[in-house]
Amino acid sequence: MTSTVPQDNAISAQEQEQLDELYAAFAAAHMTPLWTQIGGLMPTSPRPDSVPFLWRWSTLLPLAERAGELVPVGRGGERRAIALANPGLPGTAYATPTLWAAIQYLGPREQAPAHRHTQTAFRFVVEGEGVWTNVEGDPVAMRRGDLLLTPGMHFHEHHNTTDRPMAWIDGLDIPLVRTIDAGFFEFGPEVLSTTETPPVSRNERLWAHPGLTPVGAPAPRSSPLMAYRWEHTDAALTAQLELEDEGFPGVVEPGHAVVRFTNPATAGDCLSTMRCEMHRLRAGTPTALTRTAGSSVWQVFSGSGVVSVGDERYEVGTGDLFCVPSWAGLALDPGPDGLDAFVFSDAPVLEALGLARTAREDRP
Amino acid sequence: MTSTVPQDNAISAQEQEQLDELYAAFAAAHMTPLWTQIGGLMPTSPRPDSVPFLWRWSTLLPLAERAGELVPVGRGGERRAIALANPGLPGTAYATPTLWAAIQYLGPREQAPAHRHTQTAFRFVVEGEGVWTNVEGDPVAMRRGDLLLTPGMHFHEHHNTTDRPMAWIDGLDIPLVRTIDAGFFEFGPEVLSTTETPPVSRNERLWAHPGLTPVGAPAPRSSPLMAYRWEHTDAALTAQLELEDEGFPGVVEPGHAVVRFTNPATAGDCLSTMRCEMHRLRAGTPTALTRTAGSSVWQVFSGSGVVSVGDERYEVGTGDLFCVPSWAGLALDPGPDGLDAFVFSDAPVLEALGLARTAREDRP
Amino acid sequence: MTSTVPQDNAISAQEQEQLDELYAAFAAAHMTPLWTQIGGLMPTSPRPDSVPFLWRWSTLLPLAERAGELVPVGRGGERRAIALANPGLPGTAYATPTLWAAIQYLGPREQAPAHRHTQTAFRFVVEGEGVWTNVEGDPVAMRRGDLLLTPGMHFHEHHNTTDRPMAWIDGLDIPLVRTIDAGFFEFGPEVLSTTETPPVSRNERLWAHPGLTPVGAPAPRSSPLMAYRWEHTDAALTAQLELEDEGFPGVVEPGHAVVRFTNPATAGDCLSTMRCEMHRLRAGTPTALTRTAGSSVWQVFSGSGVVSVGDERYEVGTGDLFCVPSWAGLALDPGPDGLDAFVFSDAPVLEALGLARTAREDRP
Amino acid sequence: MTSTVPQDNAISAQEQEQLDELYAAFAAAHMTPLWTQIGGLMPTSPRPDSVPFLWRWSTLLPLAERAGELVPVGRGGERRAIALANPGLPGTAYATPTLWAAIQYLGPREQAPAHRHTQTAFRFVVEGEGVWTNVEGDPVAMRRGDLLLTPGMHFHEHHNTTDRPMAWIDGLDIPLVRTIDAGFFEFGPEVLSTTETPPVSRNERLWAHPGLTPVGAPAPRSSPLMAYRWEHTDAALTAQLELEDEGFPGVVEPGHAVVRFTNPATAGDCLSTMRCEMHRLRAGTPTALTRTAGSSVWQVFSGSGVVSVGDERYEVGTGDLFCVPSWAGLALDPGPDGLDAFVFSDAPVLEALGLARTAREDRP
Repeated sequence: MTSTVPQDNAISAQEQEQLDELYAAFAAAHMTPLWTQIGGLMPTSPRPDSVPFLWRWSTLLPLAERAGELVPVGRGGERRAIALANPGLPGTAYATPTLWAAIQYLGPREQAPAHRHTQTAFRFVVEGEGVWTNVEGDPVAMRRGDLLLTPGMHFHEHHNTTDRPMAWIDGLDIPLVRTIDAGFFEFGPEVLSTTETPPVSRNERLWAHPGLTPVGAPAPRSSPLMAYRWEHTDAALTAQLELEDEGFPGVVEPGHAVVRFTNPATAGDCLSTMRCEMHRLRAGTPTALTRTAGSSVWQVFSGSGVVSVGDERYEVGTGDLFCVPSWAGLALDPGPDGLDAFVFSDAPVLEALGLARTAREDRP
Repeated sequence: MTSTVPQDNAISAQEQEQLDELYAAFAAAHMTPLWTQIGGLMPTSPRPDSVPFLWRWSTLLPLAERAGELVPVGRGGERRAIALANPGLPGTAYATPTLWAAIQYLGPREQAPAHRHTQTAFRFVVEGEGVWTNVEGDPVAMRRGDLLLTPGMHFHEHHNTTDRPMAWIDGLDIPLVRTIDAGFFEFGPEVLSTTETPPVSRNERLWAHPGLTPVGAPAPRSSPLMAYRWEHTDAALTAQLELEDEGFPGVVEPGHAVVRFTNPATAGDCLSTMRCEMHRLRAGTPTALTRTAGSSVWQVFSGSGVVSVGDERYEVGTGDLFCVPSWAGLALDPGPDGLDAFVFSDAPVLEALGLARTAREDRP
Repeated sequence: MTSTVPQDNAISAQEQEQLDELYAAFAAAHMTPLWTQIGGLMPTSPRPDSVPFLWRWSTLLPLAERAGELVPVGRGGERRAIALANPGLPGTAYATPTLWAAIQYLGPREQAPAHRHTQTAFRFVVEGEGVWTNVEGDPVAMRRGDLLLTPGMHFHEHHNTTDRPMAWIDGLDIPLVRTIDAGFFEFGPEVLSTTETPPVSRNERLWAHPGLTPVGAPAPRSSPLMAYRWEHTDAALTAQLELEDEGFPGVVEPGHAVVRFTNPATAGDCLSTMRCEMHRLRAGTPTALTRTAGSSVWQVFSGSGVVSVGDERYEVGTGDLFCVPSWAGLALDPGPDGLDAFVFSDAPVLEALGLARTAREDRP
Repeated sequence: MTSTVPQDNAISAQEQEQLDELYAAFAAAHMTPLWTQIGGLMPTSPRPDSVPFLWRWSTLLPLAERAGELVPVGRGGERRAIALANPGLPGTAYATPTLWAAIQYLGPREQAPAHRHTQTAFRFVVEGEGVWTNVEGDPVAMRRGDLLLTPGMHFHEHHNTTDRPMAWIDGLDIPLVRTIDAGFFEFGPEVLSTTETPPVSRNERLWAHPGLTPVGAPAPRSSPLMAYRWEHTDAALTAQLELEDEGFPGVVEPGHAVVRFTNPATAGDCLSTMRCEMHRLRAGTPTALTRTAGSSVWQVFSGSGVVSVGDERYEVGTGDLFCVPSWAGLALDPGPDGLDAFVFSDAPVLEALGLARTAREDRP
């Protein structure tokens, strides 16, 4: 759709002068005509400013380590987190228009102080262990492959009780909340609520039993389960591929297993503004090409492969992160050892607002 | 509320004759006046016909075994199930006005043929193992402490592949469905769909992972998870009591842990018409006395205790079953080894219709 | 499905004796075998005890008037209501297993005192006016064609401020609530809360505006709107038939307009346990034959027609009431002036429990 | 919260150099540290870029009329609509970060061609009449005080069949949909689907009856009712204030009546992304000061008053529009004839995402 003024014919100099006067009057009155803008405002399909981009783990991790040497963590800066900044969104620290993704780094024996905010957060661990995140005073161990939640307005703090540093990925809805101006933030106490290091958090002990609801436990609006452990995720993905081998349903397409992380108290998405999933691709079974309204960020968890995002093509390995702008074609082609990948997206937002849309092309 | 005609004063013989004529005319026209019935129709609080009753496992099991010797199982009778018949509901085979409970018995190498029906069913195993129930062709092992579902209109059949018999408890909503005349029934094939004996069913492989939803699996309206294994139930109850010891929330009242069996695709009750829960009582912590609109059936799973239901008082042990009519006071006092008890009720029905009500009295 | 013991072969006298002993032991233990009952308990399709039946207005009204002469209305009997008693449910005053329907009669200047109960109620006016029902102190005028609600646990009382008597139809879920033992009842004050006679109730002034929700009004779980006026119902039905004439959607089948009375705060059924609808049939357009799981009661509001219910066939006119048992075939054939009919059913109950089912046969 | 690097102490030149190198490496890798940005990203309460602003009808209307003389309406530019451009969001045509508001002008006998888009739209008429908007081929008259809907992906076109021009307000979620890149747009046919001018649209004939649902009509996800007529809105507001005078509930605060425009098929907001309400303030009763997360745009419909938005203070009259950024304090003080005002906001978005928040201060 073109965005020109809808007048094919030449206009006279006088007419042009009158138009110029009109547009100047619009500007003075803080008014903008639709007819000069509609193509940009209302394209026939999404035209994101954000672009496909790949951040390599081999770049991210050394920089995070260097920040660990030079930058303290504490009140004010709050977290030693370095965000992925989409080149198409200059001046921001946003991976996509709705999603914030960062690598966070906590050195040996370091602590990050408590705060809470309306922004929803999670952490995903691609390697390492040794940090506990205390969510409302409940210490949650962080280990390889785990997804850990921090729903909105839950106080949280981190502590590393080991002699090794640890890095992980943070995902938040900071850009979305900033756009709609819905962010509130509060500092917590200076001193951590606890530095205990239990292997299993209290919320897991209450809620991480399949199909079992604790009748006496408070049922918050957000997920009561804060930790999704790799052992369960891995077992669920393994089972889907085995069922496929046996001829039964379970995979989303040939060789492609997916689990969605969900709130056991509602069966909906684990977070109100972000969908989190783990995908497992069997070697030799590339995915169909899909387009989805809304954006996402992926991190390779293990294995390797070739990823197409729009016109870009990336060879990816463990830890690498890439973003998928709205309606960009996405296809994953796993390497010889297959590919495990974590993804988070703004799908719950688009679904809640009636704006979700997906298209799928089978590939030759 | 009294159910007499609202006239305190004596009436004349002529008036009585006119009234008699009127009432005869009502009867002839198939009409019934409210004012002579309202006390029975609309009592100030529920006045169930059903009564508290205890069925001892030591009575039930031998009779089921004897039926195993004398009565074949097969097409027509369909199941060797013997129902608990509430003495207050003569002429029926109902445990309560909404709930059907039976002991089912399958001898060595026996099979029960496939059928399906709109009535919702579950099985609970208080002892033994060796039977698989195939639900829509998916073989589900039945073992001690397990809850196995058969949602409405799912074909199901049973097979015992061992040399030992097995008995278990069936729960259905037969009385409710009969009252509202909503029952449909179909026979399945004469030959079983499978006699495989996998330790884990396919539905569990897809759905029995805490907080993980298989994106590629069909999501039915009824629960996609057909088996709730004792190892999970036991672990969840144990955790609640341990959290209580540590000073954290989780139990419903002191010493009283409860898990509700829920549909992982909706987080609601595992069955549309019946609530299923497992309770664990610590020795020395009797429950409060509660009254609940709607009825329930309990089975002691392990341990012992003293149970009060209305004016009745039962000493109960493993396998014993008792029913709780609507609004009857219920209190459980666990024995020296504590008490584990399974319960199913019509609570989802009353909640769906806006009729749920509970009262609770702390005991001295 | 037959309900015999599943044994084709002759059994020996000794075997019979053993069986007799077993069955006697069952009876002594309050146990009932499934295999001798299953055909009745679980039929292949509903086999209601209730039967189709027609109650003529020309019979009902004179008997109600006679009751007005002989029986006072007041505390204890509470209401001068005479229920339709289904011949298939002897000993009850039930129109169907879930629905209670009655003609209620209030003489000139009479009052009926306040009470409330968990049973849900409505009133429908086939003729006359002059009575106000005060629902929680809000006087609601009752006029021809109006549907007036009394959701559960709302205090209500009636007063006739005219010199003429008035009769109307009451519908309640008394049988359902009695079956599940969920009934609670309370008397209100002896003196009426008000005897005002406004033409429009307060709840209508807040809620009877299409698509407009009063932001400052309390939003109860049950319908906040207590009166559905004939002028709106009539206009909505008229519009549907006019749209059909113009070639646009709106009717449910040719010549058949239907409006459902709904809760404006939820858009669901106006009552939690009963669905209420008004049907208008154009002359010359008989309905398809439909079967529905669950039961209903119809009242002709105006016009005439021939109604088939199961094997019965009724010629009906204004005020006549008939009941439709579960799964009985129903067809309506309007007379030369068409047919307007009010119906209430237990459809919300079956839908809430996942038991709704409908079949439809086009007629030759 | 400050956004400085969390280091109070002076650092050495060498340290600074190392930091500079690190930050340069971040930039090269398209990474941005959180600790330098967190104050802006995550403020303690919303810090909108958008500012309070007032657009006067006396400015808007003449400019729209002038555009009517100079700019044709037709394919490409699509609509002669001039948007309100918030001075705090330069380079955009957005009234707030989520809401688009414009004055649209259609001259005598003019037409605007059909298109559809995922963006949700409505029109509100502050004065005039004569235009019909055809929504999916259903002509909807536009008259003073009416709210007319165009839910997402509904084809719509306008035609003015009179000799007078007409101007009205359009509201859309263009900024929100642009931010999350969820916009799809399609042209419709060049020729209008109809130029009929019925006084009542077909959707109203089916759906604009209080509490009455047409059983035979299709029930879309979006509102089936496209027109909310002033006569109903006015009557509902009048009733709330009368009930207040009589001592009954209904107003949201003294002298302040509010109706929300809702979808009669769901009882939720009339549009998935925008809440629409009409407020009526009685003279002499200023509102409390409220702060709300999320933004809104108001238009005075009749009367006058003084409005405070944040630190701004506006004297307003009929047709004037003003926007309220997130968390800006809002208070309305009606003039001697009271004040009627229409408002639309992004409240459904914040509620769907769990981000809604409101604070209220009673004024001295």
